[in-house]
Amino acid sequence: MLAKRIMKAFMKQLKFNEKGLIPAIIQDYKTEKVLTLCYMTREALQKTLEEGKVHIFRRSRKKLMIKGETSGHIQIVKEVFVDCEANSLLFRVEQKVAACHAGYFTCYYRRINKNGALDISEEKIFNPKEVY
Amino acid sequence: MLAKRIMKAFMKQLKFNEKGLIPAIIQDYKTEKVLTLCYMTREALQKTLEEGKVHIFRRSRKKLMIKGETSGHIQIVKEVFVDCEANSLLFRVEQKVAACHAGYFTCYYRRINKNGALDISEEKIFNPKEVY
Repeated sequence: MLAKRIMKAFMKQLKFNEKGLIPAIIQDYKTEKVLTLCYMTREALQKTLEEGKVHIFRRSRKKLMIKGETSGHIQIVKEVFVDCEANSLLFRVEQKVAACHAGYFTCYYRRINKNGALDISEEKIFNPKEVY
Repeated sequence: MLAKRIMKAFMKQLKFNEKGLIPAIIQDYKTEKVLTLCYMTREALQKTLEEGKVHIFRRSRKKLMIKGETSGHIQIVKEVFVDCEANSLLFRVEQKVAACHAGYFTCYYRRINKNGALDISEEKIFNPKEVY
């Protein structure tokens, strides 16, 4: 997607936090739904921009990986935006199948109702037990 | 919006980070545009749920405030979603005027182009010098 030289100049403008991470909001470009919030190291961002597929730093595993590595539910990058303070990113992507490991299209599939309980607001798209 | 007792039960399910913050993605419910990413303390979230207007913890000032305190560009909460890991939130809101202090509707008004430079992708809505 972007040549290394160009990417480095872009990355110099960004503010990574004290852990070397930048938060990235991922939005589906067709439905406009917010899919997930992930964190990228410089390396993950570089891979994402080079290959045009979202790569993340999985904080629980401390590991760089392509989003959807196990499931095949990858995210193809369509547009990349930087916020006013250059400390967060917005990726508009084409989502393959679903973004959430719980089987839903988005990770925000639970909505708080008036009683303070969480309602499931989306249909389940796949069975995690069959995928992972 | 929510009674205190109900809210506390809801908040118990959430995972705040080591600094006592939870990231909150703010999305405009009419245009579906992602407006900004902010951080809430328990207190900021409580105020947001009680009053139905987004309150944030401004990290640079270390202060709880209503979003749009100076400008009047507040955000009316329409829906609140929790992610699969309960460590981030999505607020769908009605945005008054504009979300960004730089004068744009969203904070993500800059898009990376093929040369790695940033293009302004939105019209300026107000002049920050006249508002702040």
